[in-house]
Amino acid sequence: MALESIDGVRVPARDLSPFVIDIFKAAGADQPSAEAVAAAVVDASARAFDTHGVRLVPFYMRGLEGGRINSAPHLDITRKAPAVAHVDADDGFGHLASYRAIEEGCAIAAETGVAVVTVGRSSHHGATGCYTRTAATKGFAAIGMTHADSAVIPFGGTKAFFGTNPLSFAIPVAGEDPILLDMATSAIPFNRVQLRQATGTPLPEEVAIDKNGAFTTDPNAAVAVGPVGGARFGYKGSGLATMVDLLCSAFTGMAHGRALAAFGGPDFATPIPIGHFFIILSPALFQTLSLFDARIASFLADLRAQPGKDGRTVHAPGDIEKAEARRRLTEGLPIDRVTWAALSDFSTRFGVALPLTIS
Amino acid sequence: MALESIDGVRVPARDLSPFVIDIFKAAGADQPSAEAVAAAVVDASARAFDTHGVRLVPFYMRGLEGGRINSAPHLDITRKAPAVAHVDADDGFGHLASYRAIEEGCAIAAETGVAVVTVGRSSHHGATGCYTRTAATKGFAAIGMTHADSAVIPFGGTKAFFGTNPLSFAIPVAGEDPILLDMATSAIPFNRVQLRQATGTPLPEEVAIDKNGAFTTDPNAAVAVGPVGGARFGYKGSGLATMVDLLCSAFTGMAHGRALAAFGGPDFATPIPIGHFFIILSPALFQTLSLFDARIASFLADLRAQPGKDGRTVHAPGDIEKAEARRRLTEGLPIDRVTWAALSDFSTRFGVALPLTIS
Repeated sequence: MALESIDGVRVPARDLSPFVIDIFKAAGADQPSAEAVAAAVVDASARAFDTHGVRLVPFYMRGLEGGRINSAPHLDITRKAPAVAHVDADDGFGHLASYRAIEEGCAIAAETGVAVVTVGRSSHHGATGCYTRTAATKGFAAIGMTHADSAVIPFGGTKAFFGTNPLSFAIPVAGEDPILLDMATSAIPFNRVQLRQATGTPLPEEVAIDKNGAFTTDPNAAVAVGPVGGARFGYKGSGLATMVDLLCSAFTGMAHGRALAAFGGPDFATPIPIGHFFIILSPALFQTLSLFDARIASFLADLRAQPGKDGRTVHAPGDIEKAEARRRLTEGLPIDRVTWAALSDFSTRFGVALPLTIS
Repeated sequence: MALESIDGVRVPARDLSPFVIDIFKAAGADQPSAEAVAAAVVDASARAFDTHGVRLVPFYMRGLEGGRINSAPHLDITRKAPAVAHVDADDGFGHLASYRAIEEGCAIAAETGVAVVTVGRSSHHGATGCYTRTAATKGFAAIGMTHADSAVIPFGGTKAFFGTNPLSFAIPVAGEDPILLDMATSAIPFNRVQLRQATGTPLPEEVAIDKNGAFTTDPNAAVAVGPVGGARFGYKGSGLATMVDLLCSAFTGMAHGRALAAFGGPDFATPIPIGHFFIILSPALFQTLSLFDARIASFLADLRAQPGKDGRTVHAPGDIEKAEARRRLTEGLPIDRVTWAALSDFSTRFGVALPLTIS
């Protein structure tokens, strides 16, 4: 995907993490919750997934301070069947429950070959790829999904019904970072609309809908986005969104996306219980690992050697983000001005020193 | 999706099935193989999935008579882990192996909650939705995938690399047919190009590529198709195609799609071993079935009540095909003229009477 250009400051990841942990703790979150949120948003920003990175800190803080999020949840894990576990997130941060789900899923899949871990009574967990990628760094492949409140018109519709309902897939690669797909089943994630509001950049054509159901490129006029596939093939995006919504609701016990209150408020006091769905696979129980690794390596070598348009390179999912992540390791994580102002306010309110910026 | 208009004849499904079985047996297929192929192609045609219906009979017959397909395979099923089984298809028809995989997967998932069944040394299995739907009619939810030879350019590329790599999802609905998603991860399936060649209808804009890497609407000039998401968001289609290719190759032991020989020949004598990947879920081990059914029912009622463009109805995945299937039950299955001529040839060669057409 095309990376956003961000007008703002740059901060080293190692300094941003403790700051985020400290402000969440100052606002009442327990240590595991604060660490999980910080790990996820810094990881997303470090991997150039800016729509779901540090810019979500004010949103999470608002949920925590408003009471929507349980600051000290008691996570309850139930083994529902030999290859299935359920995590009751107790209205806490979705990040904590999702990292816990992956941990549990890897432990089960190591024995059964495949595990499904459902999460219920959870909340927004940021980038779903944070969790599938965590499984992949431990040698497991993973498919992850979350549903969300309405922001996406269904194919043939005029009003938001689906959440952006992302689908993520991660698979380990010997000797390099995992292959990572992390895509909204909408044409663009609604977070990208919000990021473009912050950066003041127009949206692409025919991906966002205004309040009258017409396409708009103005991020401030956009109230919904369309399904991936657009005007002609959007039934595919709607179909994928259906799969994600049902796996995250009917299988977790939660209500479907459109029955949920709006994540964006105005009510930040009442929990909005959502579900996530993770499938974890242990490659070693399917194939000898040397053959598995060889298959992945030859797929990647072949794909990256394909002829590209205008002499450019053809990429595997996550390649562009991996290259940018290496750059950010030395140049710091970009933080847009709106988000930086919000972090500065937290710094003042809680007496937690802002991390130094890289000039 | 928009249904194709087919110029040809109409045949009752109950008469088409025995005809297809008989010609495959006459060409050497054993009874289980002939029945599996007939079940899948008649099911696809009955459900208005014409790209993968009876028009594929000549293609399968060519593989059988050429020797690519083992006419009497010995299917070998290995339980690789408590929740994982592998079906070695012995170079037989992919339909037989896939129905067997679903049977095995449902039996395992009934105990473990989730099962993965991989299929290797298989061949083209028609519409992946035939198998996920079979699981759903037994009360299971299923995700199915198959990879294939190169027909789809990767995002940013100029040459076919991916197969059309379909992804299917089916989930049971109390009191009606399952919700069924069955989509190529390309903008359109390559079979649709072939169907349009047979029907002589131009393709939509910007979905098919000619031999120079440029878009074309001429089905006879098309040599490849693009990923779903098109010129701007095709990285999503390419990402999904990557997921399907790796799950169907690295996890099954098969080579990735571009390393496979061309399904379309000219060699129809040598097996082209491919893989399929099925995830089967037992809802009853996740939730009480009454809650599960209620969640699905309220999702469907809500979606179908959404305001549609120009006063039209908003559909759930498979709704349009379900309505058309009801019509075909009385009006018969449409068979295009090219396919009908091929069936007539088989009838003559094997002395198997053609089914009567509906006038």
